[in-house]
Amino acid sequence: MKFKMMYSFLNHDIDIVEGALEEAVYADSALIQEASLHLLQAGGKRIRPLFVLLAAKFGTYDIHTIKKVAVALELIHAASLIHDDVIDDAEIRRGKLTVKAKWDNRIAMYTGDYIFARSLELMTEIDKADAHKILADTMVELVIGEIEQMKDKYRFDQNLKDYLRRIKRKTALLISTSCVLGAICADVEKSLQMKLARFGYYVGMSYQIIDDILDFTGTEKELGKPAGGDLLQGNITLPVLFAMEDISIRKEIMKVHENMPRKEMDTIINLIIRSGAIDRARQVSNQYLDKALVIVEELPQNQAKTALKSIAKYIGKRRF
Amino acid sequence: MKFKMMYSFLNHDIDIVEGALEEAVYADSALIQEASLHLLQAGGKRIRPLFVLLAAKFGTYDIHTIKKVAVALELIHAASLIHDDVIDDAEIRRGKLTVKAKWDNRIAMYTGDYIFARSLELMTEIDKADAHKILADTMVELVIGEIEQMKDKYRFDQNLKDYLRRIKRKTALLISTSCVLGAICADVEKSLQMKLARFGYYVGMSYQIIDDILDFTGTEKELGKPAGGDLLQGNITLPVLFAMEDISIRKEIMKVHENMPRKEMDTIINLIIRSGAIDRARQVSNQYLDKALVIVEELPQNQAKTALKSIAKYIGKRRF
Repeated sequence: MKFKMMYSFLNHDIDIVEGALEEAVYADSALIQEASLHLLQAGGKRIRPLFVLLAAKFGTYDIHTIKKVAVALELIHAASLIHDDVIDDAEIRRGKLTVKAKWDNRIAMYTGDYIFARSLELMTEIDKADAHKILADTMVELVIGEIEQMKDKYRFDQNLKDYLRRIKRKTALLISTSCVLGAICADVEKSLQMKLARFGYYVGMSYQIIDDILDFTGTEKELGKPAGGDLLQGNITLPVLFAMEDISIRKEIMKVHENMPRKEMDTIINLIIRSGAIDRARQVSNQYLDKALVIVEELPQNQAKTALKSIAKYIGKRRF
Repeated sequence: MKFKMMYSFLNHDIDIVEGALEEAVYADSALIQEASLHLLQAGGKRIRPLFVLLAAKFGTYDIHTIKKVAVALELIHAASLIHDDVIDDAEIRRGKLTVKAKWDNRIAMYTGDYIFARSLELMTEIDKADAHKILADTMVELVIGEIEQMKDKYRFDQNLKDYLRRIKRKTALLISTSCVLGAICADVEKSLQMKLARFGYYVGMSYQIIDDILDFTGTEKELGKPAGGDLLQGNITLPVLFAMEDISIRKEIMKVHENMPRKEMDTIINLIIRSGAIDRARQVSNQYLDKALVIVEELPQNQAKTALKSIAKYIGKRRF
């Protein structure tokens, strides 16, 4: 089943969210607007808005309220990607030039700040104190995650715990928060909110691990950027950690530096793929996915539950 | 009268705010904490927290609530300065290395993001929907102001209106918002809130114009950075706009570029100072100040009113 078919009953609402996304970054200044729309219009799976809407389906669903939360979450995600690309010196994302590549680091910094401020402006229309608290806490963790990732670059002595904590902050919390905020803003009862939070967390962990795997196994066309880019930039992800358990591979990986020639990098990517590290990383992803699928069963039966299950499974199997 | 004597009845509360400022950026990571504290501990006049507290004095003043708002406003200001220094490639602020100079642009970007997120976290403890809305709107304008400033660099064809709109966004709105938020969070009645908002706006305009004057007339020791730095970085401020009305000076100013030798820059600074542009800029500042002093008279008599008056006058006359 194609991804979009898993939530076809939400297609109209997702269109509303898309419209609201573009509207949210409207600016008098052509530069600000163009730079803000650049990444948003490059596509993306809209996982966070989708989870906001699906979680809200377990309560009093009102698209005109919930779309604000969905848009705010996608904007925070977009802002963090734009700042991320400055840090990683990334040229390409979603098959297009990054904001920092098309304009420059300074424009990228303020475009991120602008999108971020716009998302907060939208959120102020939501009168739920706990939603604001959870979102602000998540943003603090998100930034700490980004800083940790930057600090941990080319640090080959880190361990599984470091990695898991980092992807929790960097990815899983925001996906979990998408579920919780959708639930809170639709007045879903507390115990269900917590189940949705845990579901989002587990799916988020699985999602990021798969993302880190695809960076090795995906083609440039699938990824919208060259393979092995994470490692080249010094990000030590789960496949790398597993591959480094072999001393001889570890030695090769420790030679990686920013300007490593493509050919040498390809050799290292092949070493990692052939080491069995990819399969082991996939197993860890599956463990998280299984936990998500156990929790989802505890939710009341409805279309949203079926969709959440399909999406979780899709995320665990996706190839790009 | 010395600046600190103007609000000596608040000294204890300002100490509480200082403590809360440091506490607010607490982080497990030494890097994050050190980079966050770096600018905060370099001093600064704490104008925004001061205005928050003083505005709150017109209502139900509770330091344990209001300190959160005061800290949040100072943190937003600090975050924007740190991002500002990345844009301006500034090495020195408040007599110390900037975050981007002591660490690098990337650390500075995330330190700003971190401080910003922490300020939002604090604000979520304030249960006032209108305060959140005003703050988020102000942050959007603040970022737009920064982007406009960046776009307008070395653009010698801009006019007074461009300048005034930019400093409104960049400075005056956040000072105005400090007054309003202090008032809202102390349940000050609506009509007084609006007067405090206008007072803050006028003082903020006056403050930024004086800041822009001091960039020419201050010594390096007073400024904590070399004189003429704004113009060197391409920021066309009010003294520059006035000086450019003389065609021969305009021709010289248009030669300014980032790497202009110090000696040539000093010649241009002297041209501007001798043109009478400084006095004219001071007159504009005084016009805003006068408006602030008219409004302040409409406030009920108390210690805070006296302090607001003294501070406004001090701001209009300050030499650094």
